[in-house]
Amino acid sequence: MPAKCKFCDRPAFIKLHYPKMYLCEEHFKEYFERKVRRTIERYRMLKLDERVLVAVSGGKDSAVATYILKKLGYKVECLHINLGIGDYSDKGERYAKMQCERIGAPLHIVRVRELLGHGIGEVKTRRPTCSYCGLTKRYIFNKFAYDNGFDAVATGHNLDDEASFIFNNIMNWNTQYLAKQGPVTPAGFNGKLVKKVKPLYEVTEREVVAYALASGIEYEIEECPYARGATTLEWKGILNQIEEKRPGTKINFVKGYLRKRQLFEAELKEAELGECRVCGMPSSGEVCSFCRFWGLDEPIDFRVKRQ
Amino acid sequence: MPAKCKFCDRPAFIKLHYPKMYLCEEHFKEYFERKVRRTIERYRMLKLDERVLVAVSGGKDSAVATYILKKLGYKVECLHINLGIGDYSDKGERYAKMQCERIGAPLHIVRVRELLGHGIGEVKTRRPTCSYCGLTKRYIFNKFAYDNGFDAVATGHNLDDEASFIFNNIMNWNTQYLAKQGPVTPAGFNGKLVKKVKPLYEVTEREVVAYALASGIEYEIEECPYARGATTLEWKGILNQIEEKRPGTKINFVKGYLRKRQLFEAELKEAELGECRVCGMPSSGEVCSFCRFWGLDEPIDFRVKRQ
Repeated sequence: MPAKCKFCDRPAFIKLHYPKMYLCEEHFKEYFERKVRRTIERYRMLKLDERVLVAVSGGKDSAVATYILKKLGYKVECLHINLGIGDYSDKGERYAKMQCERIGAPLHIVRVRELLGHGIGEVKTRRPTCSYCGLTKRYIFNKFAYDNGFDAVATGHNLDDEASFIFNNIMNWNTQYLAKQGPVTPAGFNGKLVKKVKPLYEVTEREVVAYALASGIEYEIEECPYARGATTLEWKGILNQIEEKRPGTKINFVKGYLRKRQLFEAELKEAELGECRVCGMPSSGEVCSFCRFWGLDEPIDFRVKRQ
Repeated sequence: MPAKCKFCDRPAFIKLHYPKMYLCEEHFKEYFERKVRRTIERYRMLKLDERVLVAVSGGKDSAVATYILKKLGYKVECLHINLGIGDYSDKGERYAKMQCERIGAPLHIVRVRELLGHGIGEVKTRRPTCSYCGLTKRYIFNKFAYDNGFDAVATGHNLDDEASFIFNNIMNWNTQYLAKQGPVTPAGFNGKLVKKVKPLYEVTEREVVAYALASGIEYEIEECPYARGATTLEWKGILNQIEEKRPGTKINFVKGYLRKRQLFEAELKEAELGECRVCGMPSSGEVCSFCRFWGLDEPIDFRVKRQ
């Protein structure tokens, strides 16, 4: 006999493990949306009148984040960065367009190769690809949001992302990265650092996949070619294995971390932030790492002309 | 063709993974002993004129620790605590006797049931068995060493024990236990807390097993019946799995912890230690947890009459 939904007579669509229950498609969607809403409230991420820029990659997480923020009534626009990683990036852009159209959220697109001359992976540098990719994305999302007056940047990071990030940095004792990680990073530096929020902070990857399926959200499945064999994927596997034996491990691990995070503050090198000579954004050196890496001598203006 | 020893023509007895090399029996023993000697030196555990009491259970770790300390020329005596856990404890006592006889180390025996009226597991209490067992062993080893003028208590904790202890307390964010864990706990409280040392701190369980085999040390293999399904065993399995993919994970994890340990000191509740009204040993309450748990109204004198 197939399992039934905990709340109605319909057949189960998913078995959740923590808390353990069977839910039909409708009740699962309700459950998931309530969970995300409560996450947003618990960490005071957003107010309803704030303008939110969602960073959309074409993948499931950012699509689900956009979909739910919109459904919860937030003022949402999206930014997709085409990283210029061949076919992988072009697929991502197509999915991002499809998703935003379906959701009814305005989409802005920045293409790294058009903007900076080279795609990610095409730059001759000793810096690891994932490292300058991260730097580039963080800068563009923040500067775009700043230039266009957004109150917050939302990203699709889910519970598995956060748990594996913390786990990885603990296993390697890179404790300097553990002081400031969390569901909300407040605005700073006179608003030049825009607030960052993670509405999917407390839902698992498995739940996000199920929600996308239940809501008919299509997305790119392919992993970035540079991420193959990345250790975070390994840590996710390990954490899933522990989770299977001890349901609740991931959420309790992340919540425990948030309770103890202040222990790592002793390690924060209070970088004296000044203004980048080129772009005027916060920088620990004379020129910020974005302008330095890309060899810029004048700032990029991301302001969108409103029709 | 069977693999050969890295240093001679003999066939390999063991393949080490970190550093990766094949060693014959003789060269493995030499390697292992040098590693333990260097651990003792690196952390300044012991001087050659200090009297060391080794806590021997009948298992492989404490037997190997005794064997090597003796071989390295330390003044070693042993204490076995018979916990009164049925057949398991009686086997342990027989092995401890056999091991100490073979090694030529004087053995003292304390039997919990004779001393305190009940064996471990026979006490009616809400406290978990492993919890009051640990409390009882720690107290007796320390008090016995203090009463008989030993300079240090050595235990057989190996790298896997330490890594899984740290891992467990991180996964549960029991950071209060992470401030003082390490290879050496210095003497304190006017010598009433005897120095504790762990000579096998940097060798893996696998290496200890191989060394016992190579040196003809026999030991009890049975796990304590109360430890079955203990989470530490699970964490050891997880860590071994990570180690297999990334050799060196365990030692680097533990060494990384030692470098960052001071971050957890903020969590230390500086318990005002006074003297236990019953036994005079260090205590955070009026009566120490040992005397309270066992309902003692006078101290136990562990002084051994020397012939």
